[in-house]
Amino acid sequence: MNDHFYALIMAGGGGTRLWPLSRRAHPKQSLTLFGERSMFQLAVDRLLPLMPLERIFVVTAAEQVGLLSEQVPGLPLDNFIIEPLGRGTASCIGLSALHLQERDPDAVMAVLTADHFIRDEAKFRAVLQAARSVAESGYLVTLGIEPTFPSTGYGYIGREQPLGEADGFDYYRVSRFTEKPDIETALKFLGEGTYFWNSGMFVWRAGRILSEIQNWMPALSELLADLGRYLGTPDYDAQLLSQWPRLRKETIDYGIMEKADRVVVIPVDLGWSDVGTWSAVMDLHESDAQHNVLLGDVLTVDSNHTMVFSRGERLIATIGVRDLIVVDTPEALLITAHDQSQHVREIVEKLRAEDRKAKL
Amino acid sequence: MNDHFYALIMAGGGGTRLWPLSRRAHPKQSLTLFGERSMFQLAVDRLLPLMPLERIFVVTAAEQVGLLSEQVPGLPLDNFIIEPLGRGTASCIGLSALHLQERDPDAVMAVLTADHFIRDEAKFRAVLQAARSVAESGYLVTLGIEPTFPSTGYGYIGREQPLGEADGFDYYRVSRFTEKPDIETALKFLGEGTYFWNSGMFVWRAGRILSEIQNWMPALSELLADLGRYLGTPDYDAQLLSQWPRLRKETIDYGIMEKADRVVVIPVDLGWSDVGTWSAVMDLHESDAQHNVLLGDVLTVDSNHTMVFSRGERLIATIGVRDLIVVDTPEALLITAHDQSQHVREIVEKLRAEDRKAKL
Repeated sequence: MNDHFYALIMAGGGGTRLWPLSRRAHPKQSLTLFGERSMFQLAVDRLLPLMPLERIFVVTAAEQVGLLSEQVPGLPLDNFIIEPLGRGTASCIGLSALHLQERDPDAVMAVLTADHFIRDEAKFRAVLQAARSVAESGYLVTLGIEPTFPSTGYGYIGREQPLGEADGFDYYRVSRFTEKPDIETALKFLGEGTYFWNSGMFVWRAGRILSEIQNWMPALSELLADLGRYLGTPDYDAQLLSQWPRLRKETIDYGIMEKADRVVVIPVDLGWSDVGTWSAVMDLHESDAQHNVLLGDVLTVDSNHTMVFSRGERLIATIGVRDLIVVDTPEALLITAHDQSQHVREIVEKLRAEDRKAKL
Repeated sequence: MNDHFYALIMAGGGGTRLWPLSRRAHPKQSLTLFGERSMFQLAVDRLLPLMPLERIFVVTAAEQVGLLSEQVPGLPLDNFIIEPLGRGTASCIGLSALHLQERDPDAVMAVLTADHFIRDEAKFRAVLQAARSVAESGYLVTLGIEPTFPSTGYGYIGREQPLGEADGFDYYRVSRFTEKPDIETALKFLGEGTYFWNSGMFVWRAGRILSEIQNWMPALSELLADLGRYLGTPDYDAQLLSQWPRLRKETIDYGIMEKADRVVVIPVDLGWSDVGTWSAVMDLHESDAQHNVLLGDVLTVDSNHTMVFSRGERLIATIGVRDLIVVDTPEALLITAHDQSQHVREIVEKLRAEDRKAKL
């Protein structure tokens, strides 16, 4: 049944939104934020009941292959697709589709992320199965997360009337994609009930997305066609390295999804988060009676709604604090108000401005 | 003039009120809380315009002599008086008076502390001079700090009518000594204008305080008389070690000052603090435009009225915090609300209860 179903895990990010734990040498997908397994390991684990490692592909930067393949030793090295440098999700997905199409002309690919949180893994696999059948009918399928609050941190997907149902999931024609909204718009979206968070997860036939790239992104399409002639030859790497930097950065949303026909959304409630800030990390952990999340060697006195995140040997003591997030690493310590953790990028920018590479 | 004037610096404390910086191996007097010099060095420095090192004596625990004499290399080793274990200030001062009396029968001694802050050092020396002349007339002189707020953390000294004036300072007969008051009493004291903080600094003739000990603390007096016979002999240390533990713990305030006659107070405004909490340390530092005190490698975003105290190599970043105190050491990190820092003892008690000596 599933022989032609493939997962593509995008694992190229080097994000600093979880500084000081996420750094250049420790990208977010390699971190163990929840329990003992890294974000990347969790992304692979939750797929395994659905497909074997042989059909799980990873697109990433060359310097991350070592770390990621160490974390999942059974993953074939041939399944790592190298993106020489970040050129947006459209290029990244196009290149990966080229590889999958070469491997299996009937490939259906689920485009997934390595650094997001999904609480309901069984439903995740069920919706992927459903999306796969919809994709086999020729649709570009997006997974839309049912919003639980008026987030201004996510893009949204609007739906029209239902088109049909697959394996218990309704799917809808997409009316529009929107960027991160202001709070008024987010509240309106939430009230209307026809808008969903754009999870960045997609399912389609590899051949279908390559046709759409041909329609809407001719420069990328030509480059992929050119590269395709070198697939499996000793010249592939050199061609990739020399041609890739010419590409313009573009997201798959703007480059394809907003323009293509037969785009559908399957709304689903997965307990999903992009884990974009430390307050998101805190909110995804179970808290104690004082609403604290204490990870590490921590003593507290009269402290509430506070997260201490530490794996060091140092003792951390808090007295009389609330709504605080403390992240302790050997190189740097972050102390942020719970509702201000998105400003960690300002710290990172200051470090860049001062060229303090050791702390980045 | 000053040939018979001696300072006795009490440096025996092993306090944990400034945990995690002050620890068993790093008592408060050895810490550099203000600038480059330790509290003990500052205590010696501010005396030097008044008297040479030869007339500065230090009473402390045996295990602290090494550290303290390293910090002030010119201080004669003979000037260290060893207190085998803490038996309260009455015993400590009595033993020191015995040594000073032996050294100089006309000795006038200023009893001082090694771990307090004094902003106005010139006035401190001036008031010591004044107190010395009053003490030479046979008085027990206490220095009373003019209160600047209704502190419930200090004891108070009440005064009667003025007795006289010395070198520009009025001195008053003492009406009463009180322990740390509740806030209502502290407010009343502040309103009446005749109560002063008990700084724990005293000036008197060594012979006079020994007579008072004879009057009011006969057990201590007998022990001192006994010890006196061994002063300068090889048996002194053994006698001290064997007899000292028998003493009952008693403060000089309760043991002598509340009972003796001819006790006077000289009120003075010195910018004095006992530096009893981290919030006191913060308030004694000059702050920046955001009311922050940032000591170490610190980056802040939208943070106010916050102290970061660190001498480590780690970068400390704060975002959106206020009224916070952060103390970073290699073994432990403290994060406390500014107005809760007195609860650091609860952390220390938890560590003791768990027998975590490495962190104490």
